[in-house]
Amino acid sequence: APEQVGLVASYADMLQIGARNMQNFPLLNAVGESQHPVLLKRGLSATTEELLMAAEYILARGNRRLAICERGIRTFETSTRNTTDINAIPVLKSLTHLPVMLDPSHSTGNWQYVTAVARAGVAAGADGLIVEVHPNPEKALSDGGQSLKPEKFAELVRQVRGISEAVGRYVPPSKVPHKAAEVA
Amino acid sequence: APEQVGLVASYADMLQIGARNMQNFPLLNAVGESQHPVLLKRGLSATTEELLMAAEYILARGNRRLAICERGIRTFETSTRNTTDINAIPVLKSLTHLPVMLDPSHSTGNWQYVTAVARAGVAAGADGLIVEVHPNPEKALSDGGQSLKPEKFAELVRQVRGISEAVGRYVPPSKVPHKAAEVA
Amino acid sequence: APEQVGLVASYADMLQIGARNMQNFPLLNAVGESQHPVLLKRGLSATTEELLMAAEYILARGNRRLAICERGIRTFETSTRNTTDINAIPVLKSLTHLPVMLDPSHSTGNWQYVTAVARAGVAAGADGLIVEVHPNPEKALSDGGQSLKPEKFAELVRQVRGISEAVGRYVPPSKVPHKAAEVA
Amino acid sequence: APEQVGLVASYADMLQIGARNMQNFPLLNAVGESQHPVLLKRGLSATTEELLMAAEYILARGNRRLAICERGIRTFETSTRNTTDINAIPVLKSLTHLPVMLDPSHSTGNWQYVTAVARAGVAAGADGLIVEVHPNPEKALSDGGQSLKPEKFAELVRQVRGISEAVGRYVPPSKVPHKAAEVA
Repeated sequence: APEQVGLVASYADMLQIGARNMQNFPLLNAVGESQHPVLLKRGLSATTEELLMAAEYILARGNRRLAICERGIRTFETSTRNTTDINAIPVLKSLTHLPVMLDPSHSTGNWQYVTAVARAGVAAGADGLIVEVHPNPEKALSDGGQSLKPEKFAELVRQVRGISEAVGRYVPPSKVPHKAAEVA
Repeated sequence: APEQVGLVASYADMLQIGARNMQNFPLLNAVGESQHPVLLKRGLSATTEELLMAAEYILARGNRRLAICERGIRTFETSTRNTTDINAIPVLKSLTHLPVMLDPSHSTGNWQYVTAVARAGVAAGADGLIVEVHPNPEKALSDGGQSLKPEKFAELVRQVRGISEAVGRYVPPSKVPHKAAEVA
Repeated sequence: APEQVGLVASYADMLQIGARNMQNFPLLNAVGESQHPVLLKRGLSATTEELLMAAEYILARGNRRLAICERGIRTFETSTRNTTDINAIPVLKSLTHLPVMLDPSHSTGNWQYVTAVARAGVAAGADGLIVEVHPNPEKALSDGGQSLKPEKFAELVRQVRGISEAVGRYVPPSKVPHKAAEVA
Repeated sequence: APEQVGLVASYADMLQIGARNMQNFPLLNAVGESQHPVLLKRGLSATTEELLMAAEYILARGNRRLAICERGIRTFETSTRNTTDINAIPVLKSLTHLPVMLDPSHSTGNWQYVTAVARAGVAAGADGLIVEVHPNPEKALSDGGQSLKPEKFAELVRQVRGISEAVGRYVPPSKVPHKAAEVA
């Protein structure tokens, strides 16, 4: 909730606005005021234009530390939990200077497809990825089915690094991951 | 139409079943009988399962010279003509041994996004691409807006070659393109 | 297939173009040439505009004995097989003079909802209904789950008659049903 | 926001949870605690099952003064702003004892289609309607295009009354409308 933004910001390196809150305008205003780095995820039936309009709420409060994130949209196809709108990557890159991220874990909902779609995202021009990892996915409290085990994740990083180089992007050596927290 | 398959096959290297004919069963049977190479495109609101069921009509007639092709699906998003279902590439690769192609020209409908989505398709594991090229897109009889000029296409090939190498696929040197013809 | 239109027309009172053939242009031309009454069903992911454009193929051959039919579209909702686009009834009535029908059997895919949606269609302004009936739905070769038993159908007719009167439409007394046949 | 529920409840006869807040769980909990009558609108890409799950949040707090409302879903069709999921009316009526409402103003987004879809909703079994009315739609601050002028609304009421009688529902004589307020 909006009044909890300060508390979360004191612990987390970045504030994530989840897909269901993309148009929660009081929350957008609050994270805009916070001046803390924000990751804004696209709603599952939001157009790319609506995503950019939501981003404006945060930018309008003077917070420019903002990245936006494609995380799959709802379509008729049921073989994956959502449909990764890969077109959205070049569309958004052509319309905004904001970093454009991809979340292949939610956009597929199935760990078997995460690495392939992560590669696709970087190849399409994404500036970053959010990937769910769990040491024991079968026992995860949520989203176990879309979580990679650490060794699969290491392989994903290796493959994505290769794609990044092919598209002329530099990937720094791995380091200790930052903390992130979703506010809702 | 089914009775024209023989005529077309005598001229074309490959028979393309367009998206609107994916479930035209007499036509599927006819190209199955022909034993000629076939490219079967996914219908714009067909599930991946329905695409594989349609492919069975061709295989059941003994024609194994078959490739299937993602070409974008119809969703609520209107910033591109269709939505490239990039998830479908690894989904189909996990379910069938058939070659899986991507048509980024139709799946985006906009030449500006074709190269990025072509890269994404190969990164996701696609076995091939179909790309529309026109020396003078403004004067094309159809689909001019999604056609690349030859020099842009050469750049696409260069970039896709880099992606292919990053994912361990070999791309042979370019040669004179084959003839293709759509039968409907 | 187009060349079978004459044969079918010699037996059937009306030629039905099924949803999957809405953009089968040779078939549209053939039924247009036939001058036989035609029922053109909307494709499951066709817009109302595309339906009207398909109707033009038939009208352009001089066949004005044409009705168009909403039969459900494909959406993300899975509680019914398709989503009845009830908005399409007044939209189409405002755009064309052609009779607009509704097929609540296909548009719901579940006999339990057929009568309610049939009432809705007539209330929205539909000029007619197509309803699947089977004396023993459990043994139907296809579409048993959406077929009404005769006594349920009689109740549907009774209810729809009440709605028709409420919206100022006249429903003639029941008579022996005509023969219809789908050509594909 | 959740903390404003008490204030709004002191002025409004009913608390409306708008489509964008259907899964705003703190807000659902707050209106559940309030014991005030609540109208819960379906999210524009929520399934009927997700709507019922959201309703459980309110019921679980002991608030049974709850109605749910279909207000159109997002699909590929663009001739209307949303697609009225008329199937949802009988589907929801078969799954819950809660009153099921329809909002034909939002579900069409065009005043020209509101009356036809209102009739359809009642014919399909809806327990109530929410209709936007404005004395001067051209000057409305929002949603003018889908608002009926008072005389058109009177005609809608007259027609809906006829449909209600045809389906055996009683509509009491009109009285001064109650106050409603959306909390978000």
